[in-house]
Amino acid sequence: MSAVIPAIETLTTQLGKLPGVGRKTAQRYAYHLLGLEEEDALELAEAIRGARAVVRPCPVCGAYTDADLCVYCADPTRQSGLICVVSDPKDVLAMEKTREFRGCYHVLFGSLSPMDGVGAEDLAIPQLLARCRAGGVSEIILATNSDAKGDVTAAYLAGQIKPLGIACTRIARGIPIGGNLEYTDEITLAQALEGRKPL
Amino acid sequence: MSAVIPAIETLTTQLGKLPGVGRKTAQRYAYHLLGLEEEDALELAEAIRGARAVVRPCPVCGAYTDADLCVYCADPTRQSGLICVVSDPKDVLAMEKTREFRGCYHVLFGSLSPMDGVGAEDLAIPQLLARCRAGGVSEIILATNSDAKGDVTAAYLAGQIKPLGIACTRIARGIPIGGNLEYTDEITLAQALEGRKPL
Repeated sequence: MSAVIPAIETLTTQLGKLPGVGRKTAQRYAYHLLGLEEEDALELAEAIRGARAVVRPCPVCGAYTDADLCVYCADPTRQSGLICVVSDPKDVLAMEKTREFRGCYHVLFGSLSPMDGVGAEDLAIPQLLARCRAGGVSEIILATNSDAKGDVTAAYLAGQIKPLGIACTRIARGIPIGGNLEYTDEITLAQALEGRKPL
Repeated sequence: MSAVIPAIETLTTQLGKLPGVGRKTAQRYAYHLLGLEEEDALELAEAIRGARAVVRPCPVCGAYTDADLCVYCADPTRQSGLICVVSDPKDVLAMEKTREFRGCYHVLFGSLSPMDGVGAEDLAIPQLLARCRAGGVSEIILATNSDAKGDVTAAYLAGQIKPLGIACTRIARGIPIGGNLEYTDEITLAQALEGRKPL
């Protein structure tokens, strides 16, 4: 009855695998790509191939790079002994946007999740501990997400790193800037209260 | 300062050209594609190439097809003399979902927009009028969008088609099913009132 064109169906299915994209949005993207000049549509295909061909995780920290080392590990002006641990390569970008951090990174590529069978060996945790044991590390800043998995991951890492005599901190939780007390959930508010600072 | 990797930047830019996708969403898509297994990411690139290679507008009506004619024009059980005019190929899908329409289609590939310099010759309007003049057409159903450009387009087409002695109708405007009177804008409500039907 309804006219399914396999090539459009395949394209819609593939676009629907992008994060947060449902079938309707995927269809909208697919028809948009079909409506473009062919060379414009193929630019996206080429961009995917191009990125996959040259971008890889930095062998030291896991941040994406198109060179041997990422720009953070390769930068001699950054403090290599101060390591910010994040779950995902895109979290590095978020940290960089602050323009506050002048240390290096370590990307875990996920969070611990015993329920889903994700253990330390499934993440870049052994590599992080190896960096810590190799010496020269003064502080590990845990910047995992502020959710259950991020909490479990941070607690696990603190338990492994502190015995090595390395300072281990976690980025603060509290009310976001511009946040309204009335609309702040009680868990965030409790954390903000607990983390209060003298003025 | 911030580490721009050209291949990721290109990918983000290309993804940002998808409709309704801003830079932040494009970046999310890009990092998602980088985080997949390479073959899974390349499936999307291949799906774009594949769709662009085989999908083309039907030479008669403009609906997308991977064959010589689209499934609607090729279907002998559909009424070829009843033509539903839509602005965009994806509107054909929307009409088909109703499972009510058993005629054929004509895709305009846009709407008239004198302000933007889009005239009849820039759309598939000459082709529509040629189909009308070729004979055998009993009714043209105008299903252009219910906005200013859709209104202009419908009015223009009615002016061209009615003198040919062909019935010309426009799909009804009114309160959508499930619509709440309180939240219906006054223009829609005025159209609904004007289009009232005896019970």
